[in-house]
Amino acid sequence: MSYLIVAKNDIKLFITRAMVAVGTNASHADILADVLIAGDYRGHFSHGLNRLDLYLEDIKGKSCKADGQPIILNESAATAWVDGNNLLGPVVGKFCMELAIKKAKEAGIGWVVAKGSNHFGIAGYYSLLAMNENMIGMAFTNASPLVATTRGKEPFFGTNPLTVAAPANNGDSFVLDMATSVVALGKVELADRKDESIPDNWAIDKNGQQITDPKNLNALLPLGGPEKSSGYKGYGLAMMVELFTAILSGSAVAPNVRKWSDNHTTANLGQCFVAINPEMFAPGFTDRMSNLIDHCRNQEPVDGQPNVLVAGDPERENMRKCDEQGGIAYHINQITFANGIASQLNIEPPKVHSD
Amino acid sequence: MSYLIVAKNDIKLFITRAMVAVGTNASHADILADVLIAGDYRGHFSHGLNRLDLYLEDIKGKSCKADGQPIILNESAATAWVDGNNLLGPVVGKFCMELAIKKAKEAGIGWVVAKGSNHFGIAGYYSLLAMNENMIGMAFTNASPLVATTRGKEPFFGTNPLTVAAPANNGDSFVLDMATSVVALGKVELADRKDESIPDNWAIDKNGQQITDPKNLNALLPLGGPEKSSGYKGYGLAMMVELFTAILSGSAVAPNVRKWSDNHTTANLGQCFVAINPEMFAPGFTDRMSNLIDHCRNQEPVDGQPNVLVAGDPERENMRKCDEQGGIAYHINQITFANGIASQLNIEPPKVHSD
Repeated sequence: MSYLIVAKNDIKLFITRAMVAVGTNASHADILADVLIAGDYRGHFSHGLNRLDLYLEDIKGKSCKADGQPIILNESAATAWVDGNNLLGPVVGKFCMELAIKKAKEAGIGWVVAKGSNHFGIAGYYSLLAMNENMIGMAFTNASPLVATTRGKEPFFGTNPLTVAAPANNGDSFVLDMATSVVALGKVELADRKDESIPDNWAIDKNGQQITDPKNLNALLPLGGPEKSSGYKGYGLAMMVELFTAILSGSAVAPNVRKWSDNHTTANLGQCFVAINPEMFAPGFTDRMSNLIDHCRNQEPVDGQPNVLVAGDPERENMRKCDEQGGIAYHINQITFANGIASQLNIEPPKVHSD
Repeated sequence: MSYLIVAKNDIKLFITRAMVAVGTNASHADILADVLIAGDYRGHFSHGLNRLDLYLEDIKGKSCKADGQPIILNESAATAWVDGNNLLGPVVGKFCMELAIKKAKEAGIGWVVAKGSNHFGIAGYYSLLAMNENMIGMAFTNASPLVATTRGKEPFFGTNPLTVAAPANNGDSFVLDMATSVVALGKVELADRKDESIPDNWAIDKNGQQITDPKNLNALLPLGGPEKSSGYKGYGLAMMVELFTAILSGSAVAPNVRKWSDNHTTANLGQCFVAINPEMFAPGFTDRMSNLIDHCRNQEPVDGQPNVLVAGDPERENMRKCDEQGGIAYHINQITFANGIASQLNIEPPKVHSD
C-alpha cells in the first residue's frame, strides 16, 4: 500500500507542533497549518505538507520572523498598504484579506497590498476567505524567478499566480487558482523523475530554445507558450501580477526576488488581496453565477472527452474523496518525510489511520 | 500605392460626420470617433475605422440609442453599478471610467460595472484614460460568443478582453490589452483570405477537433490552447471577465449575448472599469515601474530574435510611425469603404493626404 490516510485535524496538529518546535508563535503556526492543509485537501500537494520543511528552514534560519504583527502603513476607505513585517506568508495573507473584506463591506471593495511577506501557500486560500463572506475574492503574489519573458532566455518572473473565487447557490462556486506560466515547475520535475518527455511548449533551455527533455530546463514559458501561440499574453499577465504585488507595495521585484532554493535571504515578497462586495451591484448575483456554471458544465463535451468542468471542480472532487475516506491520502514517502521531521524536532509524528 | 495617409483629425471629423448623419448626438459621435481613432493609431485596425459600419447599423437599426445618459443605479465610496441605457459603448465606457477615477482619488480605488452597454472599441482606450490621470487603469467587456470552453465544441464566451495600463517615468508605460482567446478572430480570417493554414492550437471545428484549415472554424480556443497546454487557464480567465462584467452587472451572459453579425437585437453587454490610485501605496511607483520595464527590455534576446518588448511597445512604435508620416496609413480598400459610406450618407469623405 503506497498511500496512507491522515485525518485533516491530525495533520493540522502535526504541522502546528513542528512550527512551534522551531519557535513559531502558536497562532501563527495554526494559520500556516490551515493553509497547508487546504493545499492538500484541494489536491495541490506541492503546496501542502510537502513544503513544511521550507517554512521550518525559513524560521530556523531567521530569514522569516517567528512572531510579531503586520503593520498598516497607509489606508483609505477602500485600500491599505501593509508591511508584512517578514512574518509567515499565511499570517500576512490572512491579516490583509480580513482587512480587505472589512473595507469591502462598507466601501464596496477592499484592495490591500503587502510588502515584506513570504511564501503564502495556495493563493486560493485567500480568495476563499472572501468567498466565505459572500464576496468575490482575489489574491496575487510574486515569487522566485522561474519564468522567462517572451524572447528572453533566463528566469525573470515567478510563476506569479492569480486567484479569483466567487460564490454561487447551494455551496457551488467558481474558484480559479492558476500560475501565469504554462505549467507549474512541479509538472516538469515530475516528468524528470519519471524519465518522460514534456510537450515542447512548456519550457526552454539556457539558449532560450524550446525543450522536450525536462533535464534541459532553464526557465518555464509564460501561459500561451511560444510567441506564435500568444505567450506574450502570459508574459503580460505575469507582469500584471508583479505590478499589483511588487510595484504597488515596494517589495523585491521579479529577478531580484531570492532564488527558489535560497533560505538564507529575506524573501520580501509582494502580495495583493482583494474583496469585492456583490451586494453593491445587480441583485441576484449567486443565481446568475449558478446559471453560468451550470451552463458551462451542461455542454456536450468533445467526443471521447470527459465532462466540461468549471474552475474549482477538480478540487471539489478531491475534497469529496478526502471526506469520504476520512482524511487526506498521502503517498507513503510524504509520511516518511513527516516522520523524519518529527524525529529531528523530537515531536510526535502525525497520527496515521490504520486501514 | 496601396496605402493612403489620413491625418488623425480628418478621420475624426469624418467618423463624427457619419455618426451624426444617422442621428447620433454630436458629443456621443465625438467620443466614438476618439475611440476608433485610438484603435487605428495604436495599430489595431480591426477596432478602428474598419468597424464604423457596425456602429452606423446599430444606430440606424435602433438596436443602440443615439442619445441619452448612462444612469447610476447604485454606488458606494469605491463602487458604482451603472445602466448604460443602451448607448454607444464608448459613451458608457468613458462615463464609467471617469466615475472610477473620481472614486479612486478619494477612496483609493474605483470599481464601476455597467449593464446595457454596446461594443466599446479597444479596451485599452479606457485603461489609458485612468493612466493619463497617473492611475492604474483596467477595463473588461464580455462580447458575442466566439470562444469554446475547454472540452466544449461550440462558441461559448466572447473573446472577453482585459486591459491593464500603468504609468512609468517620462511618458513610458505598461499597457496590456489582450483577448483571453489564443488569438483574435481577425487572425483566423486573415489566414483564410490569404489561403494560409493556421497553427493547430488556435481553433476547433464543429466536432471540437483542432484545425489547421481556417475554413473549418467553429470556435476559437481560449488562451493556452488545448487542455494539455493549460487552455483551461484561458477558459478560467474568460470566465473571470464574464464574472466582472455580465454577472456583476446583470447584463446578457456568455452564449446569450447576440451573435457577432446580429445588428437587430440589443447587445446588452456587461463591462467593468477600474482605477487604482498608486499614491495610496508605496511612494516611488513610477520609478519602480520604469525599472521593471527597462529590466525586461534590456535582457539579451534569444539568438536570432528581435528585442524583448513590454506590453504596449508595438503600439508605441505604430504611434511613432503615424506621427512621423503625419497621420494614419490606411489600406486603399479602407478609404474606398469610407468613401462608400460618405456617398451613401451624402456627407464629405475623409480628406486624404495627396502624397
